[in-house]
Amino acid sequence: MGVISEARCGGHVDVIAELARVEGIDYETLRRRVASGRIIIVRNNRRPKIRITGIGEGLRTKVNVNVGTSGAIADMKMEIEKVRTAVRYGTDTIMDLSTGGDLDYIRRKLLEESDGIPFGTVPAYQAWIEGIRKFGGVDIPSDWFVSIVERHLRDGVDFMTIHAGITRDLALRAVRGSRIMPIVSRGGSILAAWMIENNRENPYLEHWDYLIELFGEYDATISLGDALRPGATADAHDELQIAELVNNSKLARDAVAKGVQVMIEGPGHMSLDKIAADVRLMKSLSGGLPYYVLGPLVTDVAIGYDHIAAAIGAAIAAAAGADLICYLTPSEHLSLPNVEQVKEGLLAAKIAAHAGDIVKLGAKAAEEDIRVSLMRAKLDWEGQIKASPDPEKASKVRMQFGGNIRSFEGVERLGKDTSVERS
Amino acid sequence: MGVISEARCGGHVDVIAELARVEGIDYETLRRRVASGRIIIVRNNRRPKIRITGIGEGLRTKVNVNVGTSGAIADMKMEIEKVRTAVRYGTDTIMDLSTGGDLDYIRRKLLEESDGIPFGTVPAYQAWIEGIRKFGGVDIPSDWFVSIVERHLRDGVDFMTIHAGITRDLALRAVRGSRIMPIVSRGGSILAAWMIENNRENPYLEHWDYLIELFGEYDATISLGDALRPGATADAHDELQIAELVNNSKLARDAVAKGVQVMIEGPGHMSLDKIAADVRLMKSLSGGLPYYVLGPLVTDVAIGYDHIAAAIGAAIAAAAGADLICYLTPSEHLSLPNVEQVKEGLLAAKIAAHAGDIVKLGAKAAEEDIRVSLMRAKLDWEGQIKASPDPEKASKVRMQFGGNIRSFEGVERLGKDTSVERS
Repeated sequence: MGVISEARCGGHVDVIAELARVEGIDYETLRRRVASGRIIIVRNNRRPKIRITGIGEGLRTKVNVNVGTSGAIADMKMEIEKVRTAVRYGTDTIMDLSTGGDLDYIRRKLLEESDGIPFGTVPAYQAWIEGIRKFGGVDIPSDWFVSIVERHLRDGVDFMTIHAGITRDLALRAVRGSRIMPIVSRGGSILAAWMIENNRENPYLEHWDYLIELFGEYDATISLGDALRPGATADAHDELQIAELVNNSKLARDAVAKGVQVMIEGPGHMSLDKIAADVRLMKSLSGGLPYYVLGPLVTDVAIGYDHIAAAIGAAIAAAAGADLICYLTPSEHLSLPNVEQVKEGLLAAKIAAHAGDIVKLGAKAAEEDIRVSLMRAKLDWEGQIKASPDPEKASKVRMQFGGNIRSFEGVERLGKDTSVERS
Repeated sequence: MGVISEARCGGHVDVIAELARVEGIDYETLRRRVASGRIIIVRNNRRPKIRITGIGEGLRTKVNVNVGTSGAIADMKMEIEKVRTAVRYGTDTIMDLSTGGDLDYIRRKLLEESDGIPFGTVPAYQAWIEGIRKFGGVDIPSDWFVSIVERHLRDGVDFMTIHAGITRDLALRAVRGSRIMPIVSRGGSILAAWMIENNRENPYLEHWDYLIELFGEYDATISLGDALRPGATADAHDELQIAELVNNSKLARDAVAKGVQVMIEGPGHMSLDKIAADVRLMKSLSGGLPYYVLGPLVTDVAIGYDHIAAAIGAAIAAAAGADLICYLTPSEHLSLPNVEQVKEGLLAAKIAAHAGDIVKLGAKAAEEDIRVSLMRAKLDWEGQIKASPDPEKASKVRMQFGGNIRSFEGVERLGKDTSVERS
């Protein structure tokens, strides 16, 4: 029995009690939200060791780090180092997006390295790459897509992006439409290519009921992919994006009704004034289910600095109710990230999530800010450095000119002047 | 005659025509806004060479870079390099906040290096540091503060932070009040200390009419400082901040009535849900005059990454109508920035300003995003790298693993898949 069903029975559920402890929320509130699907507890019941991680209404906004090889660069040592870095700097979830090398081996190895942190994948990649090899072209049987999902579930993968919301009709409208960037989602491109080439409906949609059974069996989480998310701010909130969101919302409600945990993925590229409306629309259409956003990137031009453009969007999204934020790195749109860029992207996303939580959760999140401000007022440098999201960097910056910050003579009596702020 | 008065006369004003060309706005609209003080053209009429830079309603959001020595670190070579870096990466204004070394020499030298970019100072620093030396303590005559302003004006300084809005009463209420960080503004601390120690009213307020005459003579801009800006998110929008804003708004309206250009400085530390209200309140109280914000920082905890916390706040502020954004660097609250951190802070602020402008100015700002998105759709790497705010970094990141980004086999026909985005 999955956690939704257990929660509906009303008795004591261990993982909900554990989540109540972690998040500092009373058990009964959590139980009701888990029962309604508004909070998910992301874990595959076959995974031996897992950190209990909740995503959804009233919880701290979580952040996700993507790792994984590409077709050109499959350096396992580096990917393992990325996972370790993500764990060290406090990611909440990790996704393996590998597309190069032995995908089964890589997934199992990275899962092993993830230190009990919820681990996700995008099974369409492997289905496509290995499917083309196995079947000699794009004429891949539709149940092959499902068999890869099953393989990932058996390995203990906790959540998976399932691109079930893009229908053949939507894919055709996207490629024939007027978008600047018709389909930027890689999984979305795969599904669209398969549907159009084979003149078939979406394999995940065709096998939806079986997928529900599978995910139910492992109590894993379906993350409904946004194949048609805008890849340019000019494409945001067009009928394609909204049509897919409507489809995903229906599917998500169906999953919850059947006791399967689910979240919905969101944009993407979007000017900042659209973000709060986007989150509210998603919450309304889905009945308050968890929303997992990629950024959003509030401009298309921040090439080399997309982690900053994404942090702006993510903070606004989190404040408006987004529940899980996917990090972006400075290498977005340019290259696979290196280890340092993974760290930079994660820290930017964590800062954004916290800034959003100050609004979303109020005092509960802001107490950390008060703690730091009190240390700042006391000129407690050691405390501030320890409180930094990156104490090593903070310490280095603090000492870069010898750590000598002086107050102006004569103003020390005002007591709480940090004397490092402007004007 | 200052530009406000010229604009009011209704004839042709060269600098307004030049601004119309730079900003792509019709002359008459600009003329009316300059006449009403809603747009300022920041330049000291004694400065031989100046880039015509407008700040205010309907214009592109501008960014400011602070440079300058500290009491402990006075490395002119580094400060000059910071100015050059700020110029190279496209700052709109520069402020010299030096507090160590020969302040007159430093100011003149950095002004010379600023390549015609509007240049600002905070004269209270020099007034205090040299005043204490000259008068043997804090018993500095009030007209000394004004004499330093005059010295800066004669040097060609284009705008100056003048902390006229903090009265003695407000200073006392701040130090006796319940804020976590009573006064974090350095200039504000100086004014407060002087007023409290000498039991006198604010020297800038006392000599306000003479200051108006002086700034009028040079057609320079008064930037009314926010001595009581919140230095902790917990202190934001308290009665001290608002009382000073009310004072500054009255003074600003008085300056405009007398034909002197003025802007008002704003926070500071502030949770992101308060920012739009803050900007709207300022615009309402001041009658739509230009707003110059420092960040705002949307969390207190981003130690070592304050440029990101500030970019989040700045983007929201710009979208809501803020006109000039002061950058913050990763070294904020920790140390004087080094040259690389100046660059990082500036680029984060520029990305934020642009993200805000997409909302504030619509198509006019978004056309750059469309241009980049079209290049992205065509996989035009060279064009994208050139369009980056930092082409050198973008190129390096692009090539960090050999520049080999492949589409999935079989999806190329979808044409516009960048294949570097997630899922």
